[in-house]
Amino acid sequence: MEILKDRIRKDGKVLNGNILKVDNFVNHQVDVKLFNEMGKEFKKRFNGYEINKIVTIESSGIGIATIVSQYFDFAPVVFAKKTIGGNFSQESYETKVYSYTKKQEYNVKISKEFINKGDKVLIIDDFLANGNASLGLVDIIKQAEATVVGVGIIIEKGFQEGREKLEKEGIRVESLAIVEKMEGNKIYFK
Amino acid sequence: MEILKDRIRKDGKVLNGNILKVDNFVNHQVDVKLFNEMGKEFKKRFNGYEINKIVTIESSGIGIATIVSQYFDFAPVVFAKKTIGGNFSQESYETKVYSYTKKQEYNVKISKEFINKGDKVLIIDDFLANGNASLGLVDIIKQAEATVVGVGIIIEKGFQEGREKLEKEGIRVESLAIVEKMEGNKIYFK
Repeated sequence: MEILKDRIRKDGKVLNGNILKVDNFVNHQVDVKLFNEMGKEFKKRFNGYEINKIVTIESSGIGIATIVSQYFDFAPVVFAKKTIGGNFSQESYETKVYSYTKKQEYNVKISKEFINKGDKVLIIDDFLANGNASLGLVDIIKQAEATVVGVGIIIEKGFQEGREKLEKEGIRVESLAIVEKMEGNKIYFK
Repeated sequence: MEILKDRIRKDGKVLNGNILKVDNFVNHQVDVKLFNEMGKEFKKRFNGYEINKIVTIESSGIGIATIVSQYFDFAPVVFAKKTIGGNFSQESYETKVYSYTKKQEYNVKISKEFINKGDKVLIIDDFLANGNASLGLVDIIKQAEATVVGVGIIIEKGFQEGREKLEKEGIRVESLAIVEKMEGNKIYFK
């Protein structure tokens, strides 16, 4: 998606070799107009597929998933939670996800009420790198006997193994921008 | 907002006296069509005000803030972060917020890049109870020498002191549903 790649070239910052910071339009400040363009693009990429639910993981997946829903007939968005709050249902599907960025293992949970057997789920997230977060969501969706129609990603780090792991599970991955390598402050796309 | 009150009556659950659970359409599963109706309503309530930024706090404020932006000329959404990640900017405005729901104090931060002197900010959040989260955001916005135009809330617990504290600071509060009391499983609105 050219306008996204241009924006990453303009506003993305490469930190410590492998971290791509896009927090002025994706995951701290959010450009909602650009998110709508992404929503349209995901609709094109998954056109003709039956999708009745959008699943993401808190926090930075929530904004894009909410906008994407508007292009899939307002399919309900369910966001997986990373910690147990006082009002979290005891009845949930759970899995563990290790975050390399935060160097921490999370319990990831979705209440059993919100993923039903037979659901056709589109997973949406901001980043795909090693694939741990997406694979955690796939695990939860399978526990619910629902189907993962595909994974839609804003930015994929093409030099990490996330796509390979997901495709090995037979899952279609659509990324709006695939970073092939980062050198100094320069970002190369596939 | 009548359709919201009807939905809370239908789907809201009262837990342990003071917790109102609306996780099947607000803060775990999200009804994006209803969020758009809320966006329109916030636009009505803050019509004529100059607003160039929407500020919220992760996680459950992000969805509604993102949708609300669409009704305010796609004003950028900035969401305050509760924990320090590996790629968080060191240059941020900070405050502390105590969450009664999670019985925990958070560091709440927004990167200095994303709130500018003179910004006219609308704060959006899902709940207003004791007001701690909103007051934390007000504190951050004032540190940046920006102006809080108002606070827009989906559900206010009218029997707690959040509104009073905000109004004492001269801040306009608009809540789409104000719960006056909860008894057993019954919810009374103001």
